[in-house]
Amino acid sequence: MRNFYLTLVIVALSISTAQAESLRVSSPDGEITFALSFNPRSEPVYTVHYGSEAVVRESRLGLRFSHQAPLDQALEIIGNQRRQANGQWEQPWGERRWVTDRHNELLVQLQSTDGQARRIDLRVRVFDDGLGFRYEVPEQAAYGQVNILDEITEFHLPGESTAWWIPGRRYNRYEYLYREGKLTEVETAHTPFTVRTPAGTYLSLHEAALVDYAAYVLDQRRDNVLQTNLTPWSDGVRVRTRTPFKSPWRTIQISPDAVGLANSDLILNLNEPNRLGDVSWVEPGKYVGIWWSLHRATETWGSGPRHGATTGNTLRYMDFAARHGFDGVLVEGWNIGWDGDWFHNGSLFRFTEPYPDFDIEAVAAHARKRGVRLVGHHETSGDVSNYESQMSASFDLYRRMGVRQVKTGYVADGGDIKRRGENGHWRHEWHDGQFMVNHYLRNVQEAARHQISINTHEPIKDTGLRRTYPNWIAREGARGQEYNAWGDPPNPPEHVPLLAFTRMLSGPMDFTPGIFDLQFEREGEQRVIESTLARQLALYVVIYSPIQMAADFPEHYEARPDAFKFITDVPADWEQSIALAGEPGDFVAFARQARGGGDWYIGAVTDEQKRELNLPLDFLEEGVSYTAEIYRDGPDAHFREQPYDIVIEQRVVSRGDSMALTLAPGGGAAVRLVPLSD
Amino acid sequence: MRNFYLTLVIVALSISTAQAESLRVSSPDGEITFALSFNPRSEPVYTVHYGSEAVVRESRLGLRFSHQAPLDQALEIIGNQRRQANGQWEQPWGERRWVTDRHNELLVQLQSTDGQARRIDLRVRVFDDGLGFRYEVPEQAAYGQVNILDEITEFHLPGESTAWWIPGRRYNRYEYLYREGKLTEVETAHTPFTVRTPAGTYLSLHEAALVDYAAYVLDQRRDNVLQTNLTPWSDGVRVRTRTPFKSPWRTIQISPDAVGLANSDLILNLNEPNRLGDVSWVEPGKYVGIWWSLHRATETWGSGPRHGATTGNTLRYMDFAARHGFDGVLVEGWNIGWDGDWFHNGSLFRFTEPYPDFDIEAVAAHARKRGVRLVGHHETSGDVSNYESQMSASFDLYRRMGVRQVKTGYVADGGDIKRRGENGHWRHEWHDGQFMVNHYLRNVQEAARHQISINTHEPIKDTGLRRTYPNWIAREGARGQEYNAWGDPPNPPEHVPLLAFTRMLSGPMDFTPGIFDLQFEREGEQRVIESTLARQLALYVVIYSPIQMAADFPEHYEARPDAFKFITDVPADWEQSIALAGEPGDFVAFARQARGGGDWYIGAVTDEQKRELNLPLDFLEEGVSYTAEIYRDGPDAHFREQPYDIVIEQRVVSRGDSMALTLAPGGGAAVRLVPLSD
Repeated sequence: MRNFYLTLVIVALSISTAQAESLRVSSPDGEITFALSFNPRSEPVYTVHYGSEAVVRESRLGLRFSHQAPLDQALEIIGNQRRQANGQWEQPWGERRWVTDRHNELLVQLQSTDGQARRIDLRVRVFDDGLGFRYEVPEQAAYGQVNILDEITEFHLPGESTAWWIPGRRYNRYEYLYREGKLTEVETAHTPFTVRTPAGTYLSLHEAALVDYAAYVLDQRRDNVLQTNLTPWSDGVRVRTRTPFKSPWRTIQISPDAVGLANSDLILNLNEPNRLGDVSWVEPGKYVGIWWSLHRATETWGSGPRHGATTGNTLRYMDFAARHGFDGVLVEGWNIGWDGDWFHNGSLFRFTEPYPDFDIEAVAAHARKRGVRLVGHHETSGDVSNYESQMSASFDLYRRMGVRQVKTGYVADGGDIKRRGENGHWRHEWHDGQFMVNHYLRNVQEAARHQISINTHEPIKDTGLRRTYPNWIAREGARGQEYNAWGDPPNPPEHVPLLAFTRMLSGPMDFTPGIFDLQFEREGEQRVIESTLARQLALYVVIYSPIQMAADFPEHYEARPDAFKFITDVPADWEQSIALAGEPGDFVAFARQARGGGDWYIGAVTDEQKRELNLPLDFLEEGVSYTAEIYRDGPDAHFREQPYDIVIEQRVVSRGDSMALTLAPGGGAAVRLVPLSD
Repeated sequence: MRNFYLTLVIVALSISTAQAESLRVSSPDGEITFALSFNPRSEPVYTVHYGSEAVVRESRLGLRFSHQAPLDQALEIIGNQRRQANGQWEQPWGERRWVTDRHNELLVQLQSTDGQARRIDLRVRVFDDGLGFRYEVPEQAAYGQVNILDEITEFHLPGESTAWWIPGRRYNRYEYLYREGKLTEVETAHTPFTVRTPAGTYLSLHEAALVDYAAYVLDQRRDNVLQTNLTPWSDGVRVRTRTPFKSPWRTIQISPDAVGLANSDLILNLNEPNRLGDVSWVEPGKYVGIWWSLHRATETWGSGPRHGATTGNTLRYMDFAARHGFDGVLVEGWNIGWDGDWFHNGSLFRFTEPYPDFDIEAVAAHARKRGVRLVGHHETSGDVSNYESQMSASFDLYRRMGVRQVKTGYVADGGDIKRRGENGHWRHEWHDGQFMVNHYLRNVQEAARHQISINTHEPIKDTGLRRTYPNWIAREGARGQEYNAWGDPPNPPEHVPLLAFTRMLSGPMDFTPGIFDLQFEREGEQRVIESTLARQLALYVVIYSPIQMAADFPEHYEARPDAFKFITDVPADWEQSIALAGEPGDFVAFARQARGGGDWYIGAVTDEQKRELNLPLDFLEEGVSYTAEIYRDGPDAHFREQPYDIVIEQRVVSRGDSMALTLAPGGGAAVRLVPLSD
C-alpha cells in the first residue's frame, strides 16, 4: 500500500517546512540557494533552488552506525559559521591553466536533542555552477572507532526529469552503455549522474575528494528520490573510520544548458591543493604502443609465437614514436603471468619479471637513445594482495628504466577484487568500496615516491583527486576504444556525446582514440568501428586527457600521413578549454587552446545523425588572423558506408567569424587554428 | 575491458567441463537433468538440461563467511547418496486437496582440497515440473557460529530469453508493476522470476522453505547470469547462524508452456509437512469489511467524524455478512495509533486499545449472535519492536473476541523496518532480511498458539510455508486492489495475467477482488478501475486465496444482486485446480472444483485486448450434465467505456463440450458449473 501512505507523508513534510527552523546559503550570483530545515520527526532535510525552481525537493541527510546512535534524527542546530572565497589557482597540467574558485560557505553545527550532546556538522559550499556538502563528525565521546552502516543522503529531484546514466548494478564497474530515459526508470546509477528537469535545467550528481571512504551508487528509493548507497566492505560494513572524520563532498552541478556542466570546475574546486610539491616530473603527452594489436587479436599478451611484447616489436614502436614526436610507448604483456587462465587469477602476475623475449634493459636503453619513454603496465586481475606485495619493487624497476607513467588494470567482476583477510582467507571486495578507494590512492602515492604517474584502468570513479595528487594523470572508467575491437555491440555513435556530459564531468579519460583502420576482421568476424576518420581526429579535442594515445598500428598511420598530421600536431595539455555546444547523446563541440601557445583546436562529434554546426569563434584573440586547418567529413562520409571520406582544407578566420561544420552520421570534425605571423 | 576477458573465461570453462568429474540426477520422467561439476579453478558449477536444451548453463555455487574459509572453491566430491520419492499428501485447505510428490534426490558431499576437511553438502531434488537444490553445512570444527557474507548461487540462463519481473530495488517491497523485457534488461529482480527461453521453455526461479535465513533478490551480474543477492541485516551480514544449517531450496520450475508453471506443486513439495497437528480451527472463507471506504477516503483509519471503525458501522457490515453467508468482517482503524503522522512511526500503535467509538465486546457479541466472526487487524508501520512487545496480549484479546484471522501490515519503506538494537539504538532492517524472516514466522507461530490464522500484508515472499504452518493463510506481496483506489497508475488490465505467472506461483494472495462501483470520485479526482464487472467476478477463481474478500460497499452489492450471486456462490477452498490456458501478461483461465463438492468454477481474464477463448471441459465428470451459470462481458463491454455491460446466462454442458468465452478489453468471465441431479 506504499504509494498511498507516501502521499500522506509528503503532505505532512511540506506543511512542516514552513514551520521548521531553516538556514540558507546562496551562490555568489544569488541564483542557487541551499536551505537546511527539519521535518516533523526532527530529521534534518535540505532543499536546493535554482532561481525559482526547486531542483532538489525536501531530502533527508545523515549517517547510521553499528554501535552508536544514528546521526540522522533527533537533531537541532546549535550554531553556524559562514565563509566566502574568491580566488584563482593554477593547474600544473589540465584542461585550463587557471581555475576560478568563488563560493559562499555555510557550516551548520548539529547536536542531538536527547541531551547526550552527539554532534555532526554539515559543511556546504555554493558556487555559481553548483554546490557541494559534506558531513563532518567531530571527535566526541562514544564515537571513537565507528562503523558507518548507512548514509541516507537523498536527492529528491523534479518529477518528469530526463536522466542519462549507467546502472550501479550491485556496485559493478563502469563499462556499460549509457542510458537515456525518464528519471523514474532509474533503478541504480553510478555517478556522474546527469538529468534535465522539466524546466530545462541540467543537473549532475557526483562526489568530490573521495578519500578513505566508500564510493556510492544512487538508488531510486521512491519515485524521483535517489539515495546514496555506500559500497560495502565484503563483511557489509560501509565505512570503517574514527572521529574526527569528513565524508567526501556530495556534489550537484547546476546549469541552464548542457555545456555549462562540461565547463564547470566544481569537482576540482572541492578538492585539496597539490600535496606533492614540485611535479615537473609529471609529463602530459602522447603515446603509442603494443595494445590495439592485442585487442584485435593479431598479437597476444601471453608468451608464444604471436607474443606482442617482444624486444624487437617494442623497438619498432619506439622508432615510430621518435620519428613522429610521441613521448611514450606502452607495452602490455611484458611480464610473467599472462599465460593460462589469468582472469580472477591475478596471483599469477610477477611485476618485476619480464618474459624472456622482452629485454627491458635493451628497450630502456633504446628509449633513452631515441628520446622517448617506455610506458609501464601493471595488470592485477583484481588480486590486490599480490600487487601490493610487489608494488614498491615494481616501481623501483620501472624508475630505473626511465619510466614516468604506469597504466594499471583491475580486470575483475564486481565483488571479485581479492585480498588476503586477517585470517589468511580470501576476501572479495568491490572496486568502489573503502578498501579499494584506499588501495588506488596508496598506489598513486607509492608511485609519486618514484616520480611515476598513474593511469588507472578499471578504476575508482574520478572525484578530482588529480588536484591533490597531480601524478594521478588519467584513468579509464567507461567503455573505451577496446569495445570497438570486440564489444557486442561496439560503442554506438551516441556514446561519445554521452560521455561528454556524464563520465567526462569527473575528469580525464584514457579513451585511446585515433583508429584509422576502421573496418577489419577479428578472429574471422567482420568488425565495423562506428566512426568516420575525421571523428577519430576530433576525439583528441573532445575527450580530454593529458595523456593521449595514438592507438592504431604504425603502418595504418604511415598510410594516411595527411590525416595523421593532426594527431602529431594536437597537444595533450591546454591553456583554456571551452565546451561550445552540445546535448547529451546528440553532439558536442569543444575549443581548446594549447598550453603556453596561441594555437587553438576545435573538436566536434555527432551521434548517428548528420548535423550542421555553426560555431562562433569569439574565443580567438582580437585582431589576430588564424589559419584554420580543417579535417572534416567528406560529402559522402558515413560511419558504416564511407568512414574514410575526409576533406582536409585550409581557411583564414578571425574572431567574430563562425566556423560552419557538417558532421556526417557517426562523424566529426577536427580543426587546428594557427595564428598568422605578420 | 570486461566483456573481452569474459569471453576468454567462458571458453576456458566450457573446455573444462568435459574434463571435470560430473554427477547427474534426472527427473522421474527423464526430461530434466541436473549435473554438478567443477570449473578449472575447482569451483563447483552446475547445469540444468530440459530434454536437449541447456536451460541453465554452467553456473557457480557456494557460500562465503566472515571468519571462516569460503565454501565456494577448492572443493572435491567425497561421496553422494541417492533417494527416490513417490507419494501423495493432503492439504487441510488449498488449491487442491491431494498433492503428488514424485522426485529423484541426489545428495553430494563436498570437502575442501586443502586438507582441512571443510565440508558442505548440496541436496538436489528433481521433479517432473522442475527442481530444487539447497546447501547443507554440517557441524564441523571452526564453523560453529557463522556469519554468511555472500551466497554466490548463479543462474546462467539462455541468451535472448524473455523475462517477466518486478525490480529488487535495494530489497524494497513487492508493490511494483511487473515488467516484460529481454532478460538482459533485468538489473535486479524479486522472485518468483519468470522467463521464456528462445526454445519456448518457461522457467520460474524462486525459493522454498525460507526459514531462519535471508531472502534473496536476483542480480544480473553478467549478461544472462543472475546471482542470488541475500538481503543483509542492517550491519551488512547476510545470515547469522551456526552449523549444522540448511539454506532454503533454490528452485527452478520448468515447463513447455506457461500454464505448466501455474499447475506446478514444486514449492509446496519442498516444504516440511504440517507441524501444527489439528488445524480444524484454520477457516478458509469469505469476508467483507471496513477497508475499501478507507482507501476511497470516504472514511478514515484515524478517529474523528469520518472514523470508519465505529461500533455501528461494524454491526452494519456484520448484518450484511450474515445475510449473505460471509464468514468474517475485517475492521481496520479500530485501535489507538492511527491519528497523526504514523508512517514510519509505528510506536504509536496500541494493539489492545480500541478507539472509544469501537466497542469490541459489543461487536464480538453481535458477531456470535449472527454467526460471523470479527477479522482482526494489526498495522505495525514497520515498528516491529513495538508490535512484538504487544503481540501475545493482542492475540489473547482477539481470541477472547472469537477472532480466527488477523491481517497484519508492515507499511514502511525498504530498509525502514525498525527494531531496538542491543544497545537501545534503532536498527533499520529490510522486509526480506533474516531478522524479518524470523519475525514473520514468530508472528505466525504465536498466532497458532491462539488458534489464529495470519494474513500478512507487506509480507516476506511466500515460499510455501503454509504447508508447515497452515495458519499462514494468505498474504499480500504485490500490487492489490487498493492501487485501483489511489495508485498512479492504477493496475492495468495486464496486471492480473502477469500476477498469475509470477507472484501467484509462490502461493495465495489476498488481492481483495469484487469491486462493483468501478468508476468513482476520490478526493475530487475521477478514478477508473481498469476492469469490467464480469472480470471482478472472474478474479475469485483466477487469483487463488483461501480467504477472499468482497471488497466493495454493501450498498453496491445490493444494487447488483444478479452479479453478486456469483460472489455468494463461489467457494474459497478447492478440491482441484487446473490452469487451462494463458500467457504472461496476455490472459489466463483457471478451472477449480469446490472442496468436497461436485461444483466446478471457471475464471478467465484478459489484458487490454479483446480475446476469444474456447476452453475444453474435459475436466468434468464423465456422464454428468452440468448447468453452466455464465457471467460474461456483454457485446459492448470495455474496461473504460462500458465496464458494466454484463450478460448472465445459463447453458447445459458436459464433458467433451467446449466453453466459448469472449473477453472484452480489460474484461473477464466467471462460470459456475452445477451437476444436474437427475
